[in-house]
Amino acid sequence: MKGFYGRILEIDLSRGKSTVTEIPEEEYRKYLGGSGLAAKIYDSRGYAELDPLAEESPLIILTGILTGHNVPTACKLAFCGKSPATGIWAEAVVGGYWPAALKTSGYDGLIITGKAEKPVYLCSGENGVSIEDATDLWGEDAYATVEKLQAVHGDKTKVAAIGPAGENQVLISAIMIDGLDARAAGRCGMGALMGSKNLKAIASVKTENVPPLHDKEALAEARKKVLPQIREKAKGLTDFGTAGGVPVVEKLGDLPIRNWTGGSWSEGAAKVSGQAMADQFFVKHYACFACPIRCGKEMKVPIGPHKDTVSHGPEYETVAGFGAMCLNDDPAYVITANDLCNRLGIDTISGSTVVAFAMELYEHNLIPADLLGDLKPEWGSGEAILKLIKQIAYREGLGEYLGRGVKKAAEYFGPLAAEFAVESKGLEFAFHDPRAFTSMAVVYATGARGACHLEGLTYFNENKAIPASILGLPDDYDPHGTEGKAVLAKTMQDYMGTFNALGLCKFLNRGHVSPADIAGWVSAVTGWDLTEKELLTAGERLFNLKRKINVGLGISRKNDTLPPRLLVHDRGEGAAAGSLPHLGKMLYEYYQLRGWSLEGIPAKETLKRLSLI
Amino acid sequence: MKGFYGRILEIDLSRGKSTVTEIPEEEYRKYLGGSGLAAKIYDSRGYAELDPLAEESPLIILTGILTGHNVPTACKLAFCGKSPATGIWAEAVVGGYWPAALKTSGYDGLIITGKAEKPVYLCSGENGVSIEDATDLWGEDAYATVEKLQAVHGDKTKVAAIGPAGENQVLISAIMIDGLDARAAGRCGMGALMGSKNLKAIASVKTENVPPLHDKEALAEARKKVLPQIREKAKGLTDFGTAGGVPVVEKLGDLPIRNWTGGSWSEGAAKVSGQAMADQFFVKHYACFACPIRCGKEMKVPIGPHKDTVSHGPEYETVAGFGAMCLNDDPAYVITANDLCNRLGIDTISGSTVVAFAMELYEHNLIPADLLGDLKPEWGSGEAILKLIKQIAYREGLGEYLGRGVKKAAEYFGPLAAEFAVESKGLEFAFHDPRAFTSMAVVYATGARGACHLEGLTYFNENKAIPASILGLPDDYDPHGTEGKAVLAKTMQDYMGTFNALGLCKFLNRGHVSPADIAGWVSAVTGWDLTEKELLTAGERLFNLKRKINVGLGISRKNDTLPPRLLVHDRGEGAAAGSLPHLGKMLYEYYQLRGWSLEGIPAKETLKRLSLI
Repeated sequence: MKGFYGRILEIDLSRGKSTVTEIPEEEYRKYLGGSGLAAKIYDSRGYAELDPLAEESPLIILTGILTGHNVPTACKLAFCGKSPATGIWAEAVVGGYWPAALKTSGYDGLIITGKAEKPVYLCSGENGVSIEDATDLWGEDAYATVEKLQAVHGDKTKVAAIGPAGENQVLISAIMIDGLDARAAGRCGMGALMGSKNLKAIASVKTENVPPLHDKEALAEARKKVLPQIREKAKGLTDFGTAGGVPVVEKLGDLPIRNWTGGSWSEGAAKVSGQAMADQFFVKHYACFACPIRCGKEMKVPIGPHKDTVSHGPEYETVAGFGAMCLNDDPAYVITANDLCNRLGIDTISGSTVVAFAMELYEHNLIPADLLGDLKPEWGSGEAILKLIKQIAYREGLGEYLGRGVKKAAEYFGPLAAEFAVESKGLEFAFHDPRAFTSMAVVYATGARGACHLEGLTYFNENKAIPASILGLPDDYDPHGTEGKAVLAKTMQDYMGTFNALGLCKFLNRGHVSPADIAGWVSAVTGWDLTEKELLTAGERLFNLKRKINVGLGISRKNDTLPPRLLVHDRGEGAAAGSLPHLGKMLYEYYQLRGWSLEGIPAKETLKRLSLI
Repeated sequence: MKGFYGRILEIDLSRGKSTVTEIPEEEYRKYLGGSGLAAKIYDSRGYAELDPLAEESPLIILTGILTGHNVPTACKLAFCGKSPATGIWAEAVVGGYWPAALKTSGYDGLIITGKAEKPVYLCSGENGVSIEDATDLWGEDAYATVEKLQAVHGDKTKVAAIGPAGENQVLISAIMIDGLDARAAGRCGMGALMGSKNLKAIASVKTENVPPLHDKEALAEARKKVLPQIREKAKGLTDFGTAGGVPVVEKLGDLPIRNWTGGSWSEGAAKVSGQAMADQFFVKHYACFACPIRCGKEMKVPIGPHKDTVSHGPEYETVAGFGAMCLNDDPAYVITANDLCNRLGIDTISGSTVVAFAMELYEHNLIPADLLGDLKPEWGSGEAILKLIKQIAYREGLGEYLGRGVKKAAEYFGPLAAEFAVESKGLEFAFHDPRAFTSMAVVYATGARGACHLEGLTYFNENKAIPASILGLPDDYDPHGTEGKAVLAKTMQDYMGTFNALGLCKFLNRGHVSPADIAGWVSAVTGWDLTEKELLTAGERLFNLKRKINVGLGISRKNDTLPPRLLVHDRGEGAAAGSLPHLGKMLYEYYQLRGWSLEGIPAKETLKRLSLI
């Protein structure tokens, strides 16, 4: 084996015991590690039957084949299992430095089951992985947890930690990476899954232990070839981070405004853009492991108890969420809300969605007075945003319900509330509007973990930021039409699944890296002769495997849909005015391309073709 | 008051008492009687809070202003309340002779609450309305019940009765009218509502008591004017009944085949058509009260225990249901299934839908063996159809679940079963395919009682069988497009609502009768100067009033949808191949035309404009 260890450490926190599981090389070639191999393990062990918060329900943490190698952006690992938020397949992929540090433990990853009697953290380093007492860390925020663990294990210690939200098993809680130079495993409530195990953190001290490479020179050569191109094409991300995209996206009608009802917000978008924030609050750039893009931005927190401390600057999704979605055009509140979510360990996509949802409930007088107290969640209120984030983390007041995610929260606030809950399969939508780029309707409707943008990213293709021609598809699309959208969604989903398995960042696409490039990197690392075609077939395999898991959990065509707000509500202004996705037409084509029945079930022949049965 | 009494008899079966309620003339002008006035009473009394099968839940039975007068097709009344099947507004409108006979009781209708201690029937005649013992009738089928009551009260007695299905509170049970020359108040499970009151039947002996007319001559003149035109234009209905439409409809892709999955079935359609059945089994034509069309057909029952008896010949919906939906091309089984449903008191639309649903479950091995016993519900099996109808009526075996309707049944058979359950708001679809005529997608999605065809009937407009120009709309439509569909659906819904209120049959449309004609009849009967515009505004009022009731019951835009089978499943064959309705686009337009919010809630200004608040 080259490039990875083929070894996973399984830790049972109830018994305080661990065992080593060997994974054959052919399994890696078939599933590529990361969330791909995790899905294979999850599926083959009958884990799907367990309640996500049951003691024996696993938190599977797997690096990919490329993670930790000197491959552009090979910084990622995946937290997988069953989502406590949605009850279906969950994967939350994250970068930073911790994943690569964890891989130097001598294991490709961890499978954590059981529940510790009292709070613990795991420590990986020269001496393997140990279970340590975390009583003193419990209740600390995610940044403070990192500081405390670095004080014990050294400055270079990299950490994955939950905040109070994860401890309290808030269903929209995240697992936070690397402290203030933050990265988040945000979606699917994996913080709650970790918290349910009394597991506060995983501290990883980097060792010299790296799996050997097959052909270091070939890899260096391949890397050298693409670096200039990545730096050039992805320069916008380097300069202003993901939040630099806010004004562009607003101009295209792609930015969700006022809980997905507004069509244009150009002044607001300018005020909270990455560019505007950089002008006022920028401290420095930072990168994840092995990444030439450096999209991370440190910023000063402008208000609140953490005023003037340095923190991670908000990403595009966070600005869209706590800015446009809530009609808040004050970047100070966006940055502070982001800092607060990071510290408390809340997914900023789901977190800002539930806040915007609460604002709409408030507008419609649907929140009981005793639940509101002195809170006034009016559109645009930065103070309400900050208060609600705290209430969510500590399950207080309104936060008790909001922390369940919009779907479950809507059940509490009555039938009309469901109209304001923008989710698919229980997961809140990421902030790219399927009315602006209709291929995203297919991506969101069929996403393995629910309304995820990252499984398809096709707004980038439609917007020509990523040439679809690298996948043999046309580069030109009518953003509001249906033609070519099903095949675009399907192809990108298959391809993007390989990133989550290999440990790569999807911003490589912004650098116009091709599947052939990636297949070459894998071959250089492993010694396999992996072709572009085999890579993409593996991606198709992974997408179908996750679908198979979800089908076992009751998912079928009936769940492949968008909320009525995105199917029926023409915003009537902005660049996507007049556009509503004809989802049925695209899905019909999609199922045929996938080799699924019209009920959305993978056909036996499809599963056989992909060696899944 | 002219044309109606302005008096309703309220009967409390728990206490065996009745009271008379006077309704002011202006209420009749505003709500037109029938299901319109019923909705007004239902809404104003807070009935909506009650469980539909609770003792105090009302069964409101109201004739319309025109019912019983010598006006073409003025034969109808409405059974209204909350549907035990769907939990929302219910109206089941029915003709025959009984409604006109009931109106000669001296009351415009009845409101029945409470529950009799033992089975009873009501008898209306010269001496008002009495409550009679029905112990001997309980368990009898609907035809036998009529015979027994006629033996007591005379041959001319007209009867509304439930069969065993209604007694057993089967949620898809009907109220049957007039015995073998049958008419059915089929939809919404009103048989169960009647059964829950221990009320077996209402026997009405015709008296001389008819409300006086304002202008008999003007009415006779108006009638004379339209009769030839009705006879000419609706000749197809006279010749072969509604079932004559089967082959035409199949050619247009409008016929649902194999539980809505098939696109063409021309040989089958020819075999079970009204024409083919008439050739083999016809006995005689019959009409409802005051109807020049005479679409009723008596036929000989070809098989089973009632072989060679004369019965009602199946309607289009029944042929589509027990024929095409179940892939059964043997008309003998269609006629026998229809006879059985009539006798047992089962809605043939919902009844055949649950049978087709069971056949699809069986194909997918989703029915537990112990529930099947020796039953083999294979596609096309006439024997399985007959067995399942009996099981449904007596709540035995599989029938216990099927009798709940497809939505609730699907909950029992697991998540995949929901893919095969074709319903909206809990009501099974009538058998006109919204993929063939997309305006029907809007009609079904927004229907006050769920997936009802009769609330819109726009397939007739799109198919040019009814000129939309009588409503000031274009006569030409692209059947698979979206243009003009929202306004067509809205306008027809408003207009059709007046029929259910006035007591008219919607086949008048097939006779090209106009709103001006109808306004003239109402004016001649009542002495009002009712204009076409006032009539249509009343229709709009009624549609909004029912929506208001449903909104109070939790209905909003989220419920205005079609099942994925009709939105995503392109049948790929037949005349509607390639067509899937773009529901979102049409609904967006529709809500604006209606003056509803984008969440599907009538705006205050709309309710004010229609004098509903």
